[in-house]
Amino acid sequence: MLEFWYEFASTYSYPTAMRIDDAAAAAGVTVRWRPFLLGPLFRDQQGLDDSPFNAAPVKGRYMWRDLERVCGEAGLAFHRPTAFPRDSLLPARVALAGDGQDWTRAFARSVYEANFVHDQDIASPETLAPLIAAAGGDPATALGAARGEPVKAALRANVEEAAAHGVFGSPSFITQDGELFWGNDRLEQALEWAARRHDVQGEYA
Amino acid sequence: MLEFWYEFASTYSYPTAMRIDDAAAAAGVTVRWRPFLLGPLFRDQQGLDDSPFNAAPVKGRYMWRDLERVCGEAGLAFHRPTAFPRDSLLPARVALAGDGQDWTRAFARSVYEANFVHDQDIASPETLAPLIAAAGGDPATALGAARGEPVKAALRANVEEAAAHGVFGSPSFITQDGELFWGNDRLEQALEWAARRHDVQGEYA
Repeated sequence: MLEFWYEFASTYSYPTAMRIDDAAAAAGVTVRWRPFLLGPLFRDQQGLDDSPFNAAPVKGRYMWRDLERVCGEAGLAFHRPTAFPRDSLLPARVALAGDGQDWTRAFARSVYEANFVHDQDIASPETLAPLIAAAGGDPATALGAARGEPVKAALRANVEEAAAHGVFGSPSFITQDGELFWGNDRLEQALEWAARRHDVQGEYA
Repeated sequence: MLEFWYEFASTYSYPTAMRIDDAAAAAGVTVRWRPFLLGPLFRDQQGLDDSPFNAAPVKGRYMWRDLERVCGEAGLAFHRPTAFPRDSLLPARVALAGDGQDWTRAFARSVYEANFVHDQDIASPETLAPLIAAAGGDPATALGAARGEPVKAALRANVEEAAAHGVFGSPSFITQDGELFWGNDRLEQALEWAARRHDVQGEYA
């Protein structure tokens, strides 16, 4: 099992979200999707009230070009969004409201496409409702639950859990034995680690 | 041809320095090694007077663990140095003093090993002299040239050239058509890009 910690505003999390389930299936690893927010971590860990890619424009310029290349190699559409980072609070809450339900991963992938292909405002219920429906969920139920205190508390708890694990960016991957990997370009290594540990556990089970 | 921009204090540049010449030969790409300093770039671009890995300890903790994994997979010895980042001014000047000479790359690799395997002070002439000799250079000549104004000016020019190319970290790779890649984990992609461009140029030459 591998935990996939993802933030909907995060650029490199888009290619990861689109490919992780197929890559994990090929590696024989199950994935648990864990939505969280990077804003509180950037603030608490680095004193930033913006994305590090905006705080250091020279890194931002490189990132946009690199992301274009990464998506191109992965065969993924990509258009640089006109707003970055986008407010991702509501879709993160919706993803948590649907935790464990069949529609949630397809919804999450479509939120990334809304942000990084279709340049849509992912904080808007008008954007999210059709994505929930297309993924097979019920928009009224999901958006209602997303506005409820249990889901809000669960998202805060996820952010705290991420921080406790040493997470500082997205995508991050955490194995069952607590190994942390950061970045779309570490997905294969994380899956390999998770598969190896699974083998070891199986051997001694 | 691919330019390899490297800073001797940089952690991820160590595995790159150890493997780039073999990887480039396998890809049919020639490499030009370009020493530079990250300190002035961190200061001018990000307002930092330290490594970003020290400025954000949560990223630093991850980096040391990740570097351990990266070196392990590459079969490279690694011991976390007791000082980081180490003053790299003198070895960078020595590398520039030897630019184009046969001993320089072996010297550069041995400086990385001094820093990240043997935990040595790479700013010390006593550390560097035997490394120059072991690589086949003349320590007195190289250290003398490293202290001369032409080499000092050449290193300042390298730093300015790096900044003009949008470099903000090490290792960085720049192709002949100006494409920038950053990080040890982008070496293969940079070589592929450089090889493809070389083919195209050959085709129309």
